[in-house]
Amino acid sequence: MKKVSVEEAWKRKYPEPVVLAVSVDAEGRANIISLGWSMCTSFEPPMMAISVGKTRYSHKLISECREFVVAFPSEEMAKEVLYCGTHSGREVDKFRETGLVAVPAKKVRPPLIEGCVANFECKVVGEIETGDHTIFVGEVVAAHVGEQKKRRLYNLGNYRLAGV
Amino acid sequence: MKKVSVEEAWKRKYPEPVVLAVSVDAEGRANIISLGWSMCTSFEPPMMAISVGKTRYSHKLISECREFVVAFPSEEMAKEVLYCGTHSGREVDKFRETGLVAVPAKKVRPPLIEGCVANFECKVVGEIETGDHTIFVGEVVAAHVGEQKKRRLYNLGNYRLAGV
Repeated sequence: MKKVSVEEAWKRKYPEPVVLAVSVDAEGRANIISLGWSMCTSFEPPMMAISVGKTRYSHKLISECREFVVAFPSEEMAKEVLYCGTHSGREVDKFRETGLVAVPAKKVRPPLIEGCVANFECKVVGEIETGDHTIFVGEVVAAHVGEQKKRRLYNLGNYRLAGV
Repeated sequence: MKKVSVEEAWKRKYPEPVVLAVSVDAEGRANIISLGWSMCTSFEPPMMAISVGKTRYSHKLISECREFVVAFPSEEMAKEVLYCGTHSGREVDKFRETGLVAVPAKKVRPPLIEGCVANFECKVVGEIETGDHTIFVGEVVAAHVGEQKKRRLYNLGNYRLAGV
């Protein structure tokens, strides 16, 4: 074993599952962010946590709206996920630019994303500042899966995304 | 898309990366827990978060010790990871029972695990209750990688563990 920088050691974390988090502004306009940092965090009640950079537009939207949708993109969605991870919703409409299709959710304002492996509707029940990010904890109030079973998408490092 | 139970939708989350979290009791005896729920959560300073069930022995140890090590097990360690995830450190010495080898860390009391893909020494800088779990947020104060590059281990569901 050898001691290295954290950055260097983090290169060993791939493949890392990727999610899309959907939020809305006060007018209901939806935005999407690609996130490599997410996890489940409770069985009962079911909860999921996402870590969002403080400077991100989605950070502002989720802080205000207190709701988000977590979607597992399918392995076919690498291009769209890369787009959502490298552009800001302050400047572009990511649904329009990527062609991803929004589907109304059952219990929250942000929409689901058609074609994803699974979608989870979440209401924020907690948050904690963690350095340059904030962890938003969402109680999952509804869940959906695609009719067809597809593989989810992973970050392989260096902007490469694929199923595994 | 069809609405299903969260439990059903979570079946679509695999492969899920697995980590081992190492903690110590007041006498310095080390324990290991297998976790499916972990993520990075800050670049600057580097932080990682783990979600630990409130009833787990490791929950008590990390709450008291305020330090933990996150290790990425290699794909060869499925048997040991399964053991650590299905036994309690209240009853067994998991290092002894699995044959996993503890290596002194540089900056925290819990030891590193030899043979892992990477080890991260963490000091607790925050925690938040999330349903039946607690998220412990650790600042990474040192990191280590194995000399040989190995693939990390993933949970494929139904107690199946493998590299991907």
